[in-house]
Amino acid sequence: MPDEFYMRLALEAAWEFQGRTYPNPAVGCVICSQHGEILAIEAHQKAGEAHAEVRAVKTALGRLNPSLIFPQDPTALHAFLLANHQNLLKDASIYVTLEPCNHYGTTPPCALLLRALHVRRVCIGMKDESPKASGGMARLVKAGIGVKQGVLEKECALLLAPFLAWQKGHFSFFKLAMSSNGVIDGGIVTSEASRKRVHELRQHLSLLAIGGNTVRTDRPTLDARLCAGKAPDVLIYSREAQFDQSIPLFSVPERKVTIASSWEPLLCSPFVMIEGGEGTLRALPEQTQWLLVFRSAHFKTGQCPCITARFKRVWHQPCGEDMMEWYIRE
Amino acid sequence: MPDEFYMRLALEAAWEFQGRTYPNPAVGCVICSQHGEILAIEAHQKAGEAHAEVRAVKTALGRLNPSLIFPQDPTALHAFLLANHQNLLKDASIYVTLEPCNHYGTTPPCALLLRALHVRRVCIGMKDESPKASGGMARLVKAGIGVKQGVLEKECALLLAPFLAWQKGHFSFFKLAMSSNGVIDGGIVTSEASRKRVHELRQHLSLLAIGGNTVRTDRPTLDARLCAGKAPDVLIYSREAQFDQSIPLFSVPERKVTIASSWEPLLCSPFVMIEGGEGTLRALPEQTQWLLVFRSAHFKTGQCPCITARFKRVWHQPCGEDMMEWYIRE
Ligand SMILES: [Zn+2]
Ligand SMILES: [Zn+2]
Repeated sequence: MPDEFYMRLALEAAWEFQGRTYPNPAVGCVICSQHGEILAIEAHQKAGEAHAEVRAVKTALGRLNPSLIFPQDPTALHAFLLANHQNLLKDASIYVTLEPCNHYGTTPPCALLLRALHVRRVCIGMKDESPKASGGMARLVKAGIGVKQGVLEKECALLLAPFLAWQKGHFSFFKLAMSSNGVIDGGIVTSEASRKRVHELRQHLSLLAIGGNTVRTDRPTLDARLCAGKAPDVLIYSREAQFDQSIPLFSVPERKVTIASSWEPLLCSPFVMIEGGEGTLRALPEQTQWLLVFRSAHFKTGQCPCITARFKRVWHQPCGEDMMEWYIRE
Repeated sequence: MPDEFYMRLALEAAWEFQGRTYPNPAVGCVICSQHGEILAIEAHQKAGEAHAEVRAVKTALGRLNPSLIFPQDPTALHAFLLANHQNLLKDASIYVTLEPCNHYGTTPPCALLLRALHVRRVCIGMKDESPKASGGMARLVKAGIGVKQGVLEKECALLLAPFLAWQKGHFSFFKLAMSSNGVIDGGIVTSEASRKRVHELRQHLSLLAIGGNTVRTDRPTLDARLCAGKAPDVLIYSREAQFDQSIPLFSVPERKVTIASSWEPLLCSPFVMIEGGEGTLRALPEQTQWLLVFRSAHFKTGQCPCITARFKRVWHQPCGEDMMEWYIRE
């Protein structure tokens, strides 16, 4: 199959963890054996855990040698893979959405690992332009490994865009639950899987912003209880500073709540999800470039929102029976 | 990778041609080499052309031996593959959404071909229950080929459902173009790719049904010009039998137009697409079990339809920048 086929699998794996890798980038990696068999489709899942390439090497080796028992700690895992690969991935092909890192961060450089495995080819979606981590490609080329760059580059650049934005200081997206025919209110719209994913995203945010009207109407808690995660700090966007303090969100331990009549605090925070209804959607700051729609599998009777801002769907992925649809401002 | 991974690729390929294989079933087929490399992902594309398995064998052999020149005619192709496979697919694995056929129809039995190739395994999504074509599995088992049945069986049954329905006499679906936020009117909603796909579907219909109000308002042609295909016969569902005969649909050559105040003519036709607006959607006969939504990548201002009938999305696939979403009545 063409390289794009495998890169797409890597992309799909990576998008599953978009946002949840904060402050790291979402990265996906596929490994094919020397014979072309897919041995691993993996993604970086969480900051502090193994990089996509390391996870993929682990999965591939585990498939080829089921007797291997891998350490949990990512640095120990990296060392273990270097010591125990037994040349099983010699002449393998690697597909990775972002140039393999070349620096000692929380974990050792992935480029070193791939070089040690004697893989035959590394296909890279997107070059790493950061002065810190870049240089992986050059290291691989120098070792005689075939490197192809720019496979599904546009799609890989899109995957990386949130990371590049929050590295520069700010990335925000508006989260919306929508029935199949566009209805966004009237009680619960999406399934349990989507609501759980929202909680999984919340725990990684630097700030959760919400419209004041939604706070008054829905009286939400805005925590991450569905994944037993950390509740984010909250910004309530409201002209009116008075709120009923018995609304559950005010009683979440170790949470800071800010009430502001401007988006200023949002723009100063690196990774923000915005929740709310049609009013909030219309009042979004122009710096909020992305929408994330959780789309249910059902139709619903009710009003559909009047969205005048121009957004375009750029990615979709299943989430249980729902769809997650990512939109970007045009 | 697990068998389900490859079967899903076969399913995705097959859904691309759902409806376009009429009166044949939509079928997908994947071939992996003895080493596990994916050699082909194919689907049956059109009645009278090669079955999915034959297309996949052709693609796989062409990849392994690029010097092969294949005949066009499906029966000649089948004979050519039998004579020229050079055991290149010995020990390959085959994934097919429907049990390979065992009868001489327009083309010779696929089960014979797979047996001759000496493949190692055949994974089947769904057993063929038709007395005419069934028995392929038994033939393979008898030849010592490993056969696994029931891989993604539910999904494969869904793929086959339209075929089973039109074989019993009637399958109909309502086609709807919808913006991302549920708007269905106000001019063109979806992209060129979706409109072309609608025309590709139209040329295979036994009947195209449309609501009378839509005919009066949109003054459509309802042909298949975007794919240079045959324009279908039309049923206009309307209490009022009078129509302006200058509406283009009345002037399409070799077309029969029926105007009826009941769905009776629709229910007597085996493969029907229904077009129209919110009124038609509300008046659908209960025998119309499916919706096909062409979903644009953009939001649009306007009204969203009030859909009170219970439908659930059961499949989605990209169509250009749009999505095709299949719904079924709950
Ligand atoms: Zn790395
Ligand atoms: Zn066949």
